[in-house]
This record gives sequence, structure tokens and C-alpha cells, in this order.
Amino acid sequence: MTDEEPTRSAPPEAHAVSPRFAEYTDRLLFGEVWQRPGLSMRDKSMLTCSVLIALNRSQYLSFHARRALDNGLSPRELSEIVTQLAVYCGWPMASAAVSELAPVYAERGIGAEDVAPEPVPPLDADPGMELRRKAVLDASIGAVSPDLARYSNELLFGDLWLHPELAPRDRSLVTLAAIWAMGLQPLLDYQYRRAFDNGVTRDEISDALVHCAFYVGWPRAMAAAMVAREVLVGDDGEDHA
Amino acid sequence: MTDEEPTRSAPPEAHAVSPRFAEYTDRLLFGEVWQRPGLSMRDKSMLTCSVLIALNRSQYLSFHARRALDNGLSPRELSEIVTQLAVYCGWPMASAAVSELAPVYAERGIGAEDVAPEPVPPLDADPGMELRRKAVLDASIGAVSPDLARYSNELLFGDLWLHPELAPRDRSLVTLAAIWAMGLQPLLDYQYRRAFDNGVTRDEISDALVHCAFYVGWPRAMAAAMVAREVLVGDDGEDHA
Amino acid sequence: MTDEEPTRSAPPEAHAVSPRFAEYTDRLLFGEVWQRPGLSMRDKSMLTCSVLIALNRSQYLSFHARRALDNGLSPRELSEIVTQLAVYCGWPMASAAVSELAPVYAERGIGAEDVAPEPVPPLDADPGMELRRKAVLDASIGAVSPDLARYSNELLFGDLWLHPELAPRDRSLVTLAAIWAMGLQPLLDYQYRRAFDNGVTRDEISDALVHCAFYVGWPRAMAAAMVAREVLVGDDGEDHA
Repeated sequence: MTDEEPTRSAPPEAHAVSPRFAEYTDRLLFGEVWQRPGLSMRDKSMLTCSVLIALNRSQYLSFHARRALDNGLSPRELSEIVTQLAVYCGWPMASAAVSELAPVYAERGIGAEDVAPEPVPPLDADPGMELRRKAVLDASIGAVSPDLARYSNELLFGDLWLHPELAPRDRSLVTLAAIWAMGLQPLLDYQYRRAFDNGVTRDEISDALVHCAFYVGWPRAMAAAMVAREVLVGDDGEDHA
Repeated sequence: MTDEEPTRSAPPEAHAVSPRFAEYTDRLLFGEVWQRPGLSMRDKSMLTCSVLIALNRSQYLSFHARRALDNGLSPRELSEIVTQLAVYCGWPMASAAVSELAPVYAERGIGAEDVAPEPVPPLDADPGMELRRKAVLDASIGAVSPDLARYSNELLFGDLWLHPELAPRDRSLVTLAAIWAMGLQPLLDYQYRRAFDNGVTRDEISDALVHCAFYVGWPRAMAAAMVAREVLVGDDGEDHA
Repeated sequence: MTDEEPTRSAPPEAHAVSPRFAEYTDRLLFGEVWQRPGLSMRDKSMLTCSVLIALNRSQYLSFHARRALDNGLSPRELSEIVTQLAVYCGWPMASAAVSELAPVYAERGIGAEDVAPEPVPPLDADPGMELRRKAVLDASIGAVSPDLARYSNELLFGDLWLHPELAPRDRSLVTLAAIWAMGLQPLLDYQYRRAFDNGVTRDEISDALVHCAFYVGWPRAMAAAMVAREVLVGDDGEDHA
């Protein structure tokens, strides 16, 4: 793993079609945003891959998957990001990601043993946190769709989030980036709280919002930041964190 | 029409790239979610095709269109779903769907006579319901864009919803699935009420939410369920249905 | 530049797959919506191209980019729309647009000198308006991500919006169409106010909503119209404009 990044630049066609955009790409995106010190290159690659899967822009995923592997994200982690985003963005997004990743894995000689689940027990859930979460969920969604609440409890929080292949802190960053990319505000407050419980720091949220703003577009990033503000500061302007 | 389903499984590349995702696909999606008894295979296919069109993932539509036809959705119904989603998701989504369906129809020998509008009069609108709907619309959207309100009244509710090629109950399920896929909450409450008026049951909404959660991703399904809860139960927790 | 439009019609496969959709395309979309008198053909092309980039449907962009150039949008303006939407919809959307526009530009003989930034100073920002905007932004987003607020101030409002290649009025229409297409409501009220400050009229907003409804789908257009109503009329029903 290295935090060094080979110089990247906009392709010649970008310069031919929109020199302003190409200049932003070279100077800002690769020259500045990817060089920011807050998050590691690995984290920035993880966020970028997550956004591309969520945004339905998997044709750029092979480029960024190669960079992610170069930046220290393991194949097992990348494969588990696909699982996480199948559930959070929908099966078609994960299927498209698989089609993009397969040739990258073949090219790198990444085989079944490199991505197979490790024979270790699932992570532990915090029983008290889980009981509170389940009670809220059953009382809200459960009133409309008991089976959607049941799958949320059993599949998401009783299984997916406990897979040991991706650290809870990484899983939270991946999930936040995907929800930002989908432009959703409901339930985002819960994911911010979960991220803090999983060890994501306020500074990391701030840096992830900046990085992802360039990939999801400003309005989605600003809307995501406004929900973060409500969680962190409250509507009354007092700091609740 | 049959409710039998040939065994489906994740493609080999899914096992090679993300075994956890492939296992979910085989065990959960095809082994469990598609086998749930609440909705017919036809309804589940109808919802899945609608979500794929709305999600901009038409490259998986040919696979699911073939299954939908096998599961008893008629070509005329499938063609009218395209019309409904042109209006509800936008013309580019419907155009992409047409490009995917054309070879499937050719392969199945489905010709112009199989999808031509039937020479029957349009369905009747409920005059009282329509007057109330129109009054609300004219007072809200009409204040900003009288022509958007006029097209809503004339094109959507005075024409599209009255096409006899798709039953109002099916049209409501198609529309709900599409709005869930787009991740929109405003105006969703109206579509739930319309769905109940069109004969969709609470249990069908619950089952459709579970099925679609796997295709649109959990946060969109949960947000959709929360709006359904407001319609069905109210903010006060009392059952309003 | 001409406001004449050659007759357009749905492709044969649309008639074969969904005659109702094809009939809507011929009679409504090309026969009526594109012929509406409120906005120029150039403006309608500009809105359509913006929506296609924002919707991630760039495969239809080459068709509409050719029409836009025929309808009087200059290559320099089209290129700057790509820059604007890189920031507002995210880099992957702009990169996809570049790939679609490159062959169109080559085919039309549009060279680097036709899209190069003009050697003129940036536009002037209104200092009072900017101070108020910056104060609001720093107090809201700045509490969560000071750097996201800083980039908003410096990159968006201190640089992008002042590029002279696209008139502020056009930039506002492009930005509104993109936000409508993304289905976002937060921050839309600010963009409506900015659009009015930039000279967009209420009638233009109304006509743009009608035109874009066909491209982004009805629920997104209705949600966008409801936010416009809050800005223009207020929740109390009184006209605030």
C-alpha cells in the first residue's frame, strides 16, 4: 500500500471537447482533491468505487478498481463492497459491478481463494444497540411491511454488517457514499450515527463529503452535509456530538 | 401462465468476483425472495421490469422481459408498461426499454397485432375523485405552471391511466415500483391512495416493498415504506386505513 | 439559428414494441411539446441536453447535441454546460458527456479554437448577494465540512458561475434542469431564487417544467414544481414574487 499517486490527467478528448472541464480535472480533481491529506488514498479509492457503483456508472469502475487495488484495498474488501451495495443500492448495480470487476481480477490473477470468505466467525453486534434499533424499526416499517422489517433485522443487521471481510468502519463509509450518490435523505441520519459508532470521525465525514462532492455532484453532497449538520449540531445550532 | 420458476443462479463470474454476493443471489434472491407466496410470479416480474426501466438498468431488461412473458404478463401489458413509464420516468428510460424489448419480441414472434391497442373504449374515471384531484392539482402546481397542471389533468389522468391495455391495479403497482426506484418521496402518498382505490391491498404493498427492496436497494425501499406508514397509520400511530 | 424543426418521429422499433408510446412520441413530444412557443428551440435543446447528462442517459446525447447545435446553441456554450454539470451532477456524468460529444464535434469540424475559453475577464459577482450567500453557507455546511463550504464559495460561486462562456441565465436553466433530473428537492429553492436574480422569468420556469417533465418523468417535475410554488407563492398561498 502506498499513498503515492501517479500523475493523472484528463483524456485528450476532454481537452478537445471542454477545456474548462479538462482543466478542472487536471488541476482540481487529480491535482488537488485526490491529494488532500485527510483520508488515505485507499479510503478515497474505496469511496470513489462505491459512488461509481451506486451512480450506475460502472463503466468507470474498472479504472478505479485498478487504482483501488494499487492503493491498498484488498480484493476481498472490494468484493465485499459489491455485497454491501447489492443490498444498499440494489441487485442490478452489484451485477453491473461484477461484470466490470471480473476482467480486472482476471488481469491481476486474483482467484477464488483471494476473495473467498475467511473461515472466521461473524463480528459481534452490540446487543443493546441492536435491541434499540430493532424496536424502532419494528414500530415504524414493521407497521407497513413486517417482512421488510424482518429482512432488515435478519439480513442486514444480523448478517451483512457482521461479515468479517470488511471492517464496520469501512462498511459505514461505503454505505454513506452510496446513499449520498443516490441522493437520499431519509434514514441518512441513522447511517451517520452508525458511522460514528463504528469509529468514523467527524473529520473523515467532512473529508469524505468533499471528495464525493466531485463524484456525486454538488447538490447531492450539500444535501448530505445538511443532514450531517442536523445529526452533529442539531437544528438549534448547539453542538450535540 | 405458471407460478413455477426454473432454478436460477448467479453467473459464474459473480462467484469468481464476490462469493458472498453470489451466495445471496442464489439463496436469497432466487431461492427465497422470488419464491415468496404473496404476489404471483407475474406480479413479481411486472415489478422487476418496472424497476429496471426506472433504474436506468435496461441491459438486464431482456432477461427479465423473457421471464415476465413466461410468467404470464402479456406483450400488450408489457408494451403499455413502457408507455406508463415514459410518462412517469421520462422518455429516455422508455426509449432504452424499447431498444431492449425489440429483439425479445422479434425472437418470440410477437408482432404488431399482439401489442396494438384494442378497439375498446377507454376506462371510466371516477368523476368525484377526478374533481377533487383536479382541484388540488390546479391549486398547487397550477399556481406555478398552469400547463404542467393541464398536461397532468389531460394527458395523465384523462388519457394514460384510462388506456385499457393495463388494468388500473397493475398500473398502480408499476407506478409505485418506478417511484420507489427513483427514490422520490413527494407525491408518493397520493400514489399509495390511488393504488388502494385501484384495488391494491395492504398485503400486496408489503410484499411489493420486500421484492423491490432487493432491486432498488434498502434505503429507497425503507423511505418508500415510511411514506406508506404515514398514509396507512398516520404520524400519530393510529391506523387510518 | 432557426426556430424551425424538421419533423421528428419515433423510430420503427418504437411502433413495433409500444404503439401507444410511439403515438405519444410523434403526436405529443415532437408534435406538441417541442413546438410550444414559450421557449426558443435553442433553450429547449439546452434543457434536453442538460437532462440527458444529469439522467445518465448520454447515449441519446449525440442526437440531441446535433439538434442543439442546429438550434443555435454554440459549441462553446455546449462545452461549458459540460463543465457546469461536472460540478452539479458529478464528474462521471461529465466524462460520459465528453465521450458522446467528441465524435459530434469531429463530424462538425468543431476544433479547439471553437471551444477555447475566450480571453475576457470573468463576470462580476454581486458583492452584497455573495456576502449573504457565503454567510448562510458558512453557518450551515461550514459547521460540518469547512472545506466543502470553502470549495462552494471559491470553486462554484467564485469561479464556475463567473465563466463568461455561458450566460448566467442559461447556467441557471441548465442547473435547474439537472437538479430536477436528479430528483433533489433540498437547495432547489436557492437555485430558483438565483435563477430569478439571473433574469429567468416565471413563464420560462413554467415552460421549462413542462418541457422537462417529458424527459425527467412526471413525479420529478411535479416535485420540482412544488418547490417552485413555495418560493413563488409561499406556504400561505400569498404571492411573494
